[in-house]
Amino acid sequence: MPVKTIEWADDAVRIIDQTLLPTEVRYLDITDVETMWEAIKSLRVRGAPAIGIAAAFGLYLAVRNSGATDYPAFMAEVDRAAGYLATSRPTAVNLFWALKRVQRLVQENASLPIPRLKQRMLDEACTMIDEDNAVCRAIGEHGAGLLAGRAESILTHCNAGGLATAQWGTALAPVYVMAERGQAVRVYADETRPLLQGARLTAWELQQAGVPVTLITDNMAATVLSHGKVQAVIVGTDRVAANGDVANKIGTFGVAVLAHEFGIPFYVAAPTSSIDMSLATGELIPIEERKPEEVTEGFGRRTAPRGVSVFNPAFDVTPNRYVTALITEKGVVRPPYVESLKTLFHLT
Amino acid sequence: MPVKTIEWADDAVRIIDQTLLPTEVRYLDITDVETMWEAIKSLRVRGAPAIGIAAAFGLYLAVRNSGATDYPAFMAEVDRAAGYLATSRPTAVNLFWALKRVQRLVQENASLPIPRLKQRMLDEACTMIDEDNAVCRAIGEHGAGLLAGRAESILTHCNAGGLATAQWGTALAPVYVMAERGQAVRVYADETRPLLQGARLTAWELQQAGVPVTLITDNMAATVLSHGKVQAVIVGTDRVAANGDVANKIGTFGVAVLAHEFGIPFYVAAPTSSIDMSLATGELIPIEERKPEEVTEGFGRRTAPRGVSVFNPAFDVTPNRYVTALITEKGVVRPPYVESLKTLFHLT
Repeated sequence: MPVKTIEWADDAVRIIDQTLLPTEVRYLDITDVETMWEAIKSLRVRGAPAIGIAAAFGLYLAVRNSGATDYPAFMAEVDRAAGYLATSRPTAVNLFWALKRVQRLVQENASLPIPRLKQRMLDEACTMIDEDNAVCRAIGEHGAGLLAGRAESILTHCNAGGLATAQWGTALAPVYVMAERGQAVRVYADETRPLLQGARLTAWELQQAGVPVTLITDNMAATVLSHGKVQAVIVGTDRVAANGDVANKIGTFGVAVLAHEFGIPFYVAAPTSSIDMSLATGELIPIEERKPEEVTEGFGRRTAPRGVSVFNPAFDVTPNRYVTALITEKGVVRPPYVESLKTLFHLT
Repeated sequence: MPVKTIEWADDAVRIIDQTLLPTEVRYLDITDVETMWEAIKSLRVRGAPAIGIAAAFGLYLAVRNSGATDYPAFMAEVDRAAGYLATSRPTAVNLFWALKRVQRLVQENASLPIPRLKQRMLDEACTMIDEDNAVCRAIGEHGAGLLAGRAESILTHCNAGGLATAQWGTALAPVYVMAERGQAVRVYADETRPLLQGARLTAWELQQAGVPVTLITDNMAATVLSHGKVQAVIVGTDRVAANGDVANKIGTFGVAVLAHEFGIPFYVAAPTSSIDMSLATGELIPIEERKPEEVTEGFGRRTAPRGVSVFNPAFDVTPNRYVTALITEKGVVRPPYVESLKTLFHLT
């Protein structure tokens, strides 16, 4: 069973500091919103679903000691904190989704006394963990149904595993479900430069769970995919547009093109909370560019000449034509996505 | 003008220790064959043409103090040293080509006194530098002819620059020729995991030569290629098969597939010495697998969990259908390669 990435314990939000993995396992007890903002910004907690949960807890932490005595003053504090938390990771739709959900909860319970409102906010964040576990398990079941008997070896990019959610993961949930059922399954993990989430996190959590994993550098995927070493690719996503375009960690697009070229199915594990029906296409998804040092000295020592120009987008957008199917908690969604996603959300 | 990668100076082979770039520029004066073997094995000198030259000098160093007094004894020493040097990098066809060339020279001059034979071996290695410069300049001219007016921005993978040859490079020679002519040219350099030749070497030598360069991680190539940021890809090669399949640094294959997908020409700078007409297809090219630590602790600290399985092929083979043209010193060669390469070598 995968480890718990985030939980409420001892009056604090307990997270694994993922920047220290895989060489050190350290838990942080977070008790204020600034520390939570920093933890999200610095990727101590990362992965779309986990970020959403972290933001919800962060919003509670921001106001739990509030001295506000009336609803408007309290709500103003909630909104201010939500605006602040929203700046930590601009691409993560789950972050905004989670913040809005808690804000709406407060609005809808405006008549409650402030202490009760605070408790409801905390309860809501805890509920999100339960819901996340249910969503991930459902994705796992649907994905295992797609893969079982067809794919024993899977390639994944970045980490959309347990460490990206409360516990079970999205892209790796089908792997855990297959392992639980005693079905043969093994994983090739792209190391995922520049921040090495594949090497540091995916390899670590699969190893912890006893699933065979082979680490490769990102540029080995063409060899692995073309030589028939895997029968499917599964990745997670930060944001899916209404047409099925998929924003995910930089490098996902390249893997998708390779999978397409070599006739290997390319699946995206996408909780419905990551699907943004307000965006017509992936071209509208803002792409965060991060600092050059992640590329030039990402490993504790300088590996590029000083002063060199660097292009460091954190995400890319995979056009829908490369996506074989989206695996949501409600079921498997296939092209044409403009229609199938509308159906999924009962918009037709 | 690019720096000199390898030269004969002060009775020694002077090389830049490329494992220390880009943070330290240190020259090594090599005077014995064991040190040369280690320098090739450890990538202190690397790149197919430079390895060939280094091997030729290594063969001379192996026997220059030989006490052999007759030809058979001397030739036996030469052959033994050649066999030893051949083990340093099993994929580099230029290594074998250079060793055979010097061995043949000795055989053809069996009647000369041993001291004269030794001098001829040294002269031959020095001649290889002159020839390499001429070959690279010719590739540069042919490549610049292909690119000028069509491509101002170029993507390259690994380092097939001056540091991979005696001075001018193969893949980067067209870039240097264009820059010399005052034509606009800029380069996106894949960092090239696991050993970061792009970040450490290509970025450094282009910066030294005043050519604008932007560093990216390997997995950003899909974004760069699909967004029209470059108009051509040029890479080097370690070995080309008779059908035009191209062995080159791991990751080349993926870039070629992406270029193909996005309609961007994919050129391979291939000195005729790297074209192996004895190999019908690239599938016959042996692929060196290197130690896992290059992937798991390639930056001075551990970045993957202990005990994780690693797949670390040093090269991949790009099938000929993804190769727009080979740029040789004799001219540009286009598909179908089975025919055009025969014509190039006057085999028809």
